[in-house]
Amino acid sequence: MLTKSEANLIHALKTRAGREKHEAFVVEGVRVVEDLMAAGIDLKFAVVAPSLEDSPRGRAIGAALYARTTVRRLRDAELTALGATETSQGVIVIAHTPHRGLDQLQLSQRALVLVLDAVQDPGNLGTLIRSAEAFAATCVLALPGTVDYWNPKVVRAAAGAAFRVPLIGDSPERVWSWLAENAFIVCGADARGSSLQDLESARHIALVVGNEGSGLREETRAHVARMIAIPMPGRADSLNVAVAAGILLYELSRT
Amino acid sequence: MLTKSEANLIHALKTRAGREKHEAFVVEGVRVVEDLMAAGIDLKFAVVAPSLEDSPRGRAIGAALYARTTVRRLRDAELTALGATETSQGVIVIAHTPHRGLDQLQLSQRALVLVLDAVQDPGNLGTLIRSAEAFAATCVLALPGTVDYWNPKVVRAAAGAAFRVPLIGDSPERVWSWLAENAFIVCGADARGSSLQDLESARHIALVVGNEGSGLREETRAHVARMIAIPMPGRADSLNVAVAAGILLYELSRT
Repeated sequence: MLTKSEANLIHALKTRAGREKHEAFVVEGVRVVEDLMAAGIDLKFAVVAPSLEDSPRGRAIGAALYARTTVRRLRDAELTALGATETSQGVIVIAHTPHRGLDQLQLSQRALVLVLDAVQDPGNLGTLIRSAEAFAATCVLALPGTVDYWNPKVVRAAAGAAFRVPLIGDSPERVWSWLAENAFIVCGADARGSSLQDLESARHIALVVGNEGSGLREETRAHVARMIAIPMPGRADSLNVAVAAGILLYELSRT
Repeated sequence: MLTKSEANLIHALKTRAGREKHEAFVVEGVRVVEDLMAAGIDLKFAVVAPSLEDSPRGRAIGAALYARTTVRRLRDAELTALGATETSQGVIVIAHTPHRGLDQLQLSQRALVLVLDAVQDPGNLGTLIRSAEAFAATCVLALPGTVDYWNPKVVRAAAGAAFRVPLIGDSPERVWSWLAENAFIVCGADARGSSLQDLESARHIALVVGNEGSGLREETRAHVARMIAIPMPGRADSLNVAVAAGILLYELSRT
């Protein structure tokens, strides 16, 4: 059984405002909970249902949860009725939002960071976080107007990367001044930009990608030193933002 | 007003079976309808509501529809109640599914084709179609088990590319024999593959990408001449399938 305050918390965490107020988020499903625990994210409590016992992996994650946090048991229909998840596979975990700030970052010799300027689609944001990890980005920086990192659809699309890559949201002023203080070359993804060829000597690089429909905002463009584009033999300006960022991160990670 | 058979058709087109039986699909929204008409796809009929008049682009597309097909008028609430769409912006169009076959394809000197082996997520499929167009792929070939090209979420994510890139579904036997007859090098995307470096001299290239969770099927692997991977300095095997395919299409379009 859940306590009343636990049930209320799960309900509150369905919205961004609730997640921000309580500094917590909900994850669902065996694979994502495995990733969450492996990453050492602080847990508040877990809720399990009998269907978790259906697989060896489910049983293992159940045992691991009992060793680390408070575990509540519900019937599967009750867990589904909480409405917090789409496909819980018999397990949800309520976790503390990791707090990462610009001042805590350790920069490698050639750091790569991904800056998001009002990316709106949760699936795109999760996919971007996943690519940032694959190409060894130091962190992801979200400017205001970007969808919440801890939206369940973002966490699912990030396939565990949301627990491992530092995800930072800050004001534009602090983001731009931090990038400037650390001598980043700020590159904006834009279909009318130039090629990447002469970025070889760069030290730190920040890649800024914009909104799915409208691209980079004017106030963002003012902080971009170089607009870069992907050479496309077919129809220009027709890549999904997460694909475009993936290709640019791939290229930038090789320079 | 809609006729009874028109209403029934719209209802039937919500499922893949209905779309295949009636060889038709539904698109919604001003931008997608513009793309549909510009691509010269055959229309069956359109349904408009007063909110289409809210923008100059909406009024223009309304006028263009009246010139090309039967247009039914409903109130906005009635159009929404049809349940065919998420955000119609006052316009839906029922169109004939374009029929493209392997025997109709014209191969350029260095053709690139994208083969999909049981890609399941509609957003991923649409994004893949969009990238195929950006990198000038000759066509997209779906093996059985892949989500329907004409699923509304696929069409939306493809951002118009679904109307311009030949989208072909065929049996594995015919796909593999067509690729062999035309001397394609069949490359499979796989995290344990080798790099792309020595594909320079290739003539035609087929890139095969697999299911989001399980990758390429065994029976597909038997037809792949080379497994190729993306060098990742961060966590390997952690890219979204559409991002991975985007990077490989980008690389292959440059060799």
